[in-house]
Formats: sequence, structure tokens, C-alpha cells
Amino acid sequence: MTVIANQISESLVKTLPGSAYSDPDLFAREQELIFGQMWFCAVSSAEIGKAGSFRTVQIGGESILLTRSRTGDARGFFNICRHRGAKLCTEEAGEVARSFQCPYHAWTYDLDGKLVAAPNLTKMPDIDRVEYGLRKVHVREWLGYVWVSLAERPPSFEDTVIGDVRTRLGDVESLERYGVENLQLGKRITYDVKANWKLIIENFMECYHCATIHPELTEVLPEFADGLAAQYFVGHGALFGEDIKGFTVDGSEGLDKIPGVTEGQDRRYYAVTVRPQVFLNMVPDHVIVHRMYPLAPDRTIVECDWLFLPEVVESGVDLSKSVELFHRVNQQDFEACERCQAATDSRVYADGGVLVPSEHHIAEFHNWVLDQLNRDA
Amino acid sequence: MTVIANQISESLVKTLPGSAYSDPDLFAREQELIFGQMWFCAVSSAEIGKAGSFRTVQIGGESILLTRSRTGDARGFFNICRHRGAKLCTEEAGEVARSFQCPYHAWTYDLDGKLVAAPNLTKMPDIDRVEYGLRKVHVREWLGYVWVSLAERPPSFEDTVIGDVRTRLGDVESLERYGVENLQLGKRITYDVKANWKLIIENFMECYHCATIHPELTEVLPEFADGLAAQYFVGHGALFGEDIKGFTVDGSEGLDKIPGVTEGQDRRYYAVTVRPQVFLNMVPDHVIVHRMYPLAPDRTIVECDWLFLPEVVESGVDLSKSVELFHRVNQQDFEACERCQAATDSRVYADGGVLVPSEHHIAEFHNWVLDQLNRDA
Amino acid sequence: MTVIANQISESLVKTLPGSAYSDPDLFAREQELIFGQMWFCAVSSAEIGKAGSFRTVQIGGESILLTRSRTGDARGFFNICRHRGAKLCTEEAGEVARSFQCPYHAWTYDLDGKLVAAPNLTKMPDIDRVEYGLRKVHVREWLGYVWVSLAERPPSFEDTVIGDVRTRLGDVESLERYGVENLQLGKRITYDVKANWKLIIENFMECYHCATIHPELTEVLPEFADGLAAQYFVGHGALFGEDIKGFTVDGSEGLDKIPGVTEGQDRRYYAVTVRPQVFLNMVPDHVIVHRMYPLAPDRTIVECDWLFLPEVVESGVDLSKSVELFHRVNQQDFEACERCQAATDSRVYADGGVLVPSEHHIAEFHNWVLDQLNRDA
Repeated sequence: MTVIANQISESLVKTLPGSAYSDPDLFAREQELIFGQMWFCAVSSAEIGKAGSFRTVQIGGESILLTRSRTGDARGFFNICRHRGAKLCTEEAGEVARSFQCPYHAWTYDLDGKLVAAPNLTKMPDIDRVEYGLRKVHVREWLGYVWVSLAERPPSFEDTVIGDVRTRLGDVESLERYGVENLQLGKRITYDVKANWKLIIENFMECYHCATIHPELTEVLPEFADGLAAQYFVGHGALFGEDIKGFTVDGSEGLDKIPGVTEGQDRRYYAVTVRPQVFLNMVPDHVIVHRMYPLAPDRTIVECDWLFLPEVVESGVDLSKSVELFHRVNQQDFEACERCQAATDSRVYADGGVLVPSEHHIAEFHNWVLDQLNRDA
Repeated sequence: MTVIANQISESLVKTLPGSAYSDPDLFAREQELIFGQMWFCAVSSAEIGKAGSFRTVQIGGESILLTRSRTGDARGFFNICRHRGAKLCTEEAGEVARSFQCPYHAWTYDLDGKLVAAPNLTKMPDIDRVEYGLRKVHVREWLGYVWVSLAERPPSFEDTVIGDVRTRLGDVESLERYGVENLQLGKRITYDVKANWKLIIENFMECYHCATIHPELTEVLPEFADGLAAQYFVGHGALFGEDIKGFTVDGSEGLDKIPGVTEGQDRRYYAVTVRPQVFLNMVPDHVIVHRMYPLAPDRTIVECDWLFLPEVVESGVDLSKSVELFHRVNQQDFEACERCQAATDSRVYADGGVLVPSEHHIAEFHNWVLDQLNRDA
Repeated sequence: MTVIANQISESLVKTLPGSAYSDPDLFAREQELIFGQMWFCAVSSAEIGKAGSFRTVQIGGESILLTRSRTGDARGFFNICRHRGAKLCTEEAGEVARSFQCPYHAWTYDLDGKLVAAPNLTKMPDIDRVEYGLRKVHVREWLGYVWVSLAERPPSFEDTVIGDVRTRLGDVESLERYGVENLQLGKRITYDVKANWKLIIENFMECYHCATIHPELTEVLPEFADGLAAQYFVGHGALFGEDIKGFTVDGSEGLDKIPGVTEGQDRRYYAVTVRPQVFLNMVPDHVIVHRMYPLAPDRTIVECDWLFLPEVVESGVDLSKSVELFHRVNQQDFEACERCQAATDSRVYADGGVLVPSEHHIAEFHNWVLDQLNRDA
């Protein structure tokens, strides 16, 4: 095991200042420079399963329309008519036959975003139908999800998204063996968390709190009681306890194992943070994907998916013991994050708090955030 | 017909930038420089029908008290006691015998706003009872409504209010023939619209959207289906369809025609925008008056009055088919405006949208707004 | 009687400008420089009656934890864990055995705020348990209440709190004779007032409004009908009316008289404003204590305590006629304050209002506020 944090020699390291979690101007810069630039895991590929099915999501303060073209490719657009700015789709999800028509003046766009019809358009022959098409966003599908970048020139997917996986696991193959893109949604739970998104990431990155707030999780993963998160190491998966049969709320047997999982990965829990808003959790029989949608300095929606083998989901077998374990962990974590949000405005938290040695790797996340905000926009 | 817009040669013209519809600072300047200066159509004259009857309204961010003096003249005051700032009248409407008494320390003002009594006032003989009277606003009655200007030196009523009527209709006589001040309120509906007031004006000025969202209206006024609003022209009234008997939701017979309406005006719909907040709609048997009360960048109250001949209202005849037509139009329009509000914060709407040729006259409204905001305060 | 106000010669004196009551930035400075510095009367001593009982309150924008140590001394801390900023106690009141444990990572503090335990703390031997103890606030008990100062170097309690009593009553002994610290809570009513805290102080300081809004109070204290508040004078107590038997809503007999009350103090009402947030009201048989908690420019929580002799409270005798008198006064006053709040944003109140001669002493309060805000922070 390689230790990541290089500040281990000092006993306490500073966190970000309190204002980093509460200042609306800083949040606006994060929306622009982080969520409005980086690859953002927006919806599952299955949600826009066929040509014309669509979803709208809120990314970096923008309403984004995701759909699938007739060629089967995922497409993403700003959900705004180019004529007078009316919101094109007000529904969160739906399906169109072959085009999106603005309900205000009937400007009509095909599934590739091109302007294909508008009243009196024939009288305006010099209007370029591509230039006045919907404004596109970059789209990429991976792990069965649609990733979006609102940047004109998006960062390298390989260096950022896949890079984060490689940094944590040591390689990408370890993740690929779970065949996440072939798994099927067994359960989705949405959490409305009254806390800054960075508190949620920091919480996910450390396990110093596990003994205090996660009794069920530390029962399943005894080493977590010692306070060292899987993320503290490279390529490390936390081993199930001796009497534990599966990653379930009571340690009972789980579901069918994913075929690609190796012996070394069996009976282990792996966790990866893909900045800025995704957590991947892998156990032998399922994968848990958290996606955050930051809405305000003190409010973040978290959508959590539990993915199993398709035959498991389709069999109708009871998934609740598997779901319940991390659902409780989520509830315990998000309550802790909300408890920290209040202090971020306090005069005694102006300089922030401290990280103990087992939390030192969080400082790298803080430096990463500061680097993003100091980039030239 | 004289075409107003002078940019007809170009196919697309820019709108205002998105921030013009969402920026709180700009809205504050509009409150001060537009609604807090220009003539604002506040209440109907009948609402302050006799001496001492009063109404309070919100204009330019201020609570304004309107009443009628013993001489029968309309009077307007800032609804604030000169002593310690207590709100004089908290009710929206009511009636006093001969004076307004502040409920905090009993300072008392007559119907002309003069300070006429206060505890211990006799011990303060050098207090000027006019100087410490209620702060007045300019008031003018026209068309059966009380128009108010909060400016110290109001703009010319003739040049602004009546000027807007003349610009649209070509003369004022065309309007005067409807005898609006003699009509009676048949129905009032109040709409709480989550959109900027300028979106509502823009919507009223163009008919490019009529075919898409106003099926009932285009049935009654077939030329609206072509997308050219009455306001596109000078002095033009849109002709009723051949089979249309009246300006009603189903084209059935309307009410008794207003006597002054000429043959040329018969079977026609006329519309006038009186900046900054009034729409006048004239048809042979009734007049519809919209008044907007902007409350926030993204919120506007619209009060809509349907006015008929007094004998029609008093007869108790069913007015609902006449009312229902424009009530539906209102609902359709305001929903469209709300749909546009969301985009005004978007990075891709920072430069605004575009106006097609049949909307080009809206650009003049935009220029007018910018001119008001750039005036020296 | 010595007249305090020195501007009596002029008939009208200006108040603070309207923005002083509505500007969020000014309120933030008040939170920092007034409520976050001066002695703030936070909770009653009885609420933290024994070691480990605690209360949390909002002072100067901060959550403050008040408790009692094993030595019986009141203690106050910022309610924030020094590790990662989690809120230590989320309950408003409660009791711990001997320490406060953070529910996030189990850092544990004793009743004096010292860090006494934390997971892996033994591996961090150089961490100073006092330096990483809870951040303390200064605490002082007086009149049966716990007074708190968030300042590093608090102002002199003698000069400020006691000084305000002395200025009003001429000496402190007049107050001490009521033995307030030995009285017992008979009734507490909490008011949520939609007005700036300074309007509430100004209202309490003058009686020009008494004749208008306080019929019950002026019945009991006839001189109040003349508009001169007790606070207008030094050492003056307003005399009960001739037929008045007690300080009750209908002038009927009150409860057992407090033994220390002198003959000169009998049948009189005394009032003191202890800046910035306490009102003391003394009558022969009870003492009423108002404490304000300013939450926003236009919102103040007022907690009002009615204190009687312990034997009176314990006897179970009906206190409602005593309570009802000032409860009505409170309701009448707070409604008046709310009525004034609206005007503070108005263009015609930008320069504020005026103080009549019987209100001139309020100008000293205004000057005091301005002095606090202009101090170097």
C-alpha cells in the first residue's frame, strides 16, 4: 500500500476556511469553473434509451437537455430556444417523435439540435439553421452514464475522469472488471442535503468518523473502525469481516456475484471519488454510484444508484438488505454534513478546522478545488 | 397602414441581454427611473368614488395612498406618517370620515394631506402643518383611472401617456369614441406572474406567437394567425373572422355595442401599449385594461379589467363568454412569459435572443427602456 | 426630576435614516460590533441550574453553548467542534453527565471546554488539549441571568450593564431592593417581531404613543397618558392611578409584594433599558424582563419573563391578570414597530422621521448606536 498524503508527519493540517462552504460568490465561481467546465455525470444511459427519449438536468446553474439521436448517439443541449429564450422542455423526462418544438413560437429543432422549422422561416432565407440550432454541450458515455461538459473545450476525459479512477485503484482494469455499463438499476434514492458539496466529498474521503456514526458499516468492514478509509490507500479494498457473508445491512448473504470480479477483489469494498461529483462503490455483487447536483452553497441533491446484474434485478429477488446498508450510511453521512454546514459562517471557523493524520489526504482535494478556482476562466 | 419598425430589412435583431430581465440592481433602477417617475395607472376612479374613500397600492417600491378630497379631486400621498414612519393605512381599501390618523402616535392628516392634529402639537407652535403634512404624489384622472407620478416634476402626461395612444392609433379621438371613463367594471381578474414585466410587454406587442398558443383568439381574429400584431401597424384594428359574431371565446354574439364606436371600428380589435405598464384593448362592446405592478425582477402582478356599458353590467347579463376569451389569452401569454424567465440567467442567453421581422418593433421598446435607465436620475 | 434630553429647546429632532433599520450590511456590523461585543443577557441562571445542564442560544449570528461546570460556575462556548466544525449540541436545552461529545468524530470536551478525548488522540501527543478545547466566551451571572460577551476583551460590566441601570435609576440599590436574582419565573412568552431591534428599543423608551395604543396601561399609570415615559427622567417611577390596586390588566389587586421594595417605590412602575437588548420593568410585586435576540434587519425574537416571589409561583395562585397587562402592552408595541418597519425602505423616509420633545432622549440612543458602529472593530 502506498500512502498518498505527504503531510503525515504533522499531526494537524488546516481545512479550507469556513467561507469556502458558504460564500455565494465562491459558489458561483465553482458553478462556472468546476461544474460548468469539468465532465459531469448527468444521467444514466438507460434514461435516454432510444432516439427521442430525453431528460433535463440542472448542471452548473444551467438547464441541460439530454437526448439520443437517430444514429444512437447521446446528445446534449442547453434547454433554451434560440429565438426568445423560452425553456424548450419543462418536463424532467419524456419522449419526442423526431423533434423538439418550442411551445412559444414553434421554432423546431431536430434531435441533433438543428433548426428545422419556424413560422415564416422561409421568408428569412439567410438564417443559418445550424448557427441558430440549439447550443450544444459535449457528451460522452461511460460506465452506463452520460457525462457532460459545458466547456467549449472540455478537459481530457482520460486525464480527469479516468485519471481519478486510476489514481485511486492503481489502474482502470480493476474497475472495468465490474462491467458497470452492463449492470442494471435495482434502486435509486434521491437525497436533498442541506450542506455544501465539498463537505459531502470530504466525508466520503475519510473514515475517521466511521466508528462514531456507521455501526452497520463497521460491522461489515471491521477495519473501518480503525478510521482509515479505503481511499487513504492506492488500490486497497476494505475486507469484509470474518462472519460477514455479504455487503448487506446485517452481513447476510448478498446477490449473485459479478462474473468479472477477481478473487483478489472478492469480499472487499472499493471506493473511488471522481471529481467533482461522483462516488463509485464496488462490492462483489453490486456497484453503488452517487452523483451530486450542487444547487446552492448550502444545498446539494445526491442521487444514489444501486446497480446489480440484470438477471438479478429481473428475477425480482429482494434487494432491500443490500440497499439498506448504504442507505443508512448515506443518511448518517448527510446528517453529519448538515451539522457542519452551520459552522461555516461562524467567526471561530473563519480559518476552518483541522484534519487529523487519517484525514490528511483531504487536503489534496482542497488544493485541487483552489487550483480550479484560480484557473483563468 | 404605416409600418413602424425600421429594421425590417434585416432578418434578425437582438433582444436585450438576459440580465436585463433578472438583475436586481437593474430592477431597482427601473423602479426608481421608470415606475417611480412616469405616469403609473394605479386604481380605477370608481375605487375612490367619494371623499374619504381610499386605496393603497404598491408603485415603484412605495406604498401609495390614494383618496378623494372634499372638493372631489383625487389625491395621492406616500402612505407613511411624517413623524416616525408608521404605515398610515394598512388596509388595501377603505373609507375615512375626514382624516387619516396614524395608529402609532395619533398624528392626524386631512384629506389634502395637511397635518391637522397631533398630541402636544399646541406645544410645538413653530411646526409647519403643511411642511409636515403627508408627502404628495402627482395625480391625474383619465379614462376612468387614477394615474400617479412619484416624480417631483412629472413628465408631460400629453407627451407620454396620450403620446403612446396617438403613436399607436394615429390620433386620440379613436380611443375617445369608446368613452372608456363612462364604462363600468364587469369583471376584474388578478394574475401573479413569475416573470419580468418587460417580457409581458414584449409578449403583448407581437403576434408571432398567436398561432402557437392562442387558438381561441386566432379563431376570432384570423389575421393574427399570420403573426402580425395589431401593434405592428399604426391605426390598424384586427378584423373579426367572417363567421364571428362577437369578441367572445366561441365567436358568439357579444354585448351591446358602445354608441361612439364608428363603422370603421366595428368588428375590429385594437390594442395599445401605454408605457410602462398599461395595455388597452378595444372591441365594439367592451374595453379591456391591463395594469402591471412589477414587484421583483421575476414577479409582476397583472390586474385585468373588463369594462362594459353601465346598463350592460347593471342588467346582470352573462358576461362570461366575453371575459373568458381574453382570460384564456392572458393565461396562455403569462405561462409563455414564465417559460422565458428561466433562461435570463443562462450563460447562453447572456447576449439575449433574437427578434424576427414581425417582432422588430419590440426593439423600439428596448431602446426606450435603455433611454429611461440612462437618463440622469 | 432631572431631565436627560438636552435638545428640548428644539421642537423636532431627526431620527436615524431609514436605511439604519433595513440595510443588511449595517445589521451585519451591528451583529459584529454590538451584539458580538457587548454583554448580552442570554438565558436565565435557572435554565442551567446544575452541572452539565445546558442551553444553546443565537448571539451575534453565532450559536453559543451555555452550561454549568462541576464548580457551579456558568460557562459559555462557541457551539462548534474544533476538529471539523460540526455543531456540538443541536438541541436547544438538555443535560450531559460530564462531557460534550461531538456526534461526528467523537471529539469530547469536559464542562470547562477542555478536549479530553478523541479517537487516536494518543497518537497525536503534541496536540494541546486546552488550545484545541472549545472556544470560550466570557460569562457573568447577574439578576438571575447569564450574561455573555463574545469579545476577546469584553467591555466593563460595571460601566455598561450596571452603568445603564445607574443612569436611569440614579443608583443600583433601587434595583437591588427587588432581589431579582431570588425571584422565580411565573410566565415566559416569546414574540417573533418583524421589525428591527432598534425600533423596539425606541418604542420602549418613549410614551408619546401610550395614549394612542395602550388603553390598559394608561388606566393603571395615568401619567403615561401625558406622553412622558418613566425613562424620560432619572429615578422616576410612574405612579399607579388612585383607584388602581395593583399592576394588573384591570387594576385589581396584584400578588405578594417583594419585601425589599421601599415605600417610595411602592405603587410605582420603573423601567430601564440595558443596552443593547434588555428591558427591566419593576413593580412592587413582580419584575418583567425583556430580552431581544436580533435575527435579521427586520426580525427580532423577544423573550419576556414575568418574575414573582418563589412562594407566589409555588402557591399556584393565578398570575394571569398580572401577566396579561404587559402581554397586551407587548402586543400593542410590537404591532406598532412592525408598522414602522415597512417605511424604512421608502425614498421619503431616507432621511428618517422626527422626534417630538417628549422623545428627544431617543436621540442619545441613536448616537450610542452610531458610536458603536464607528469604533474600530
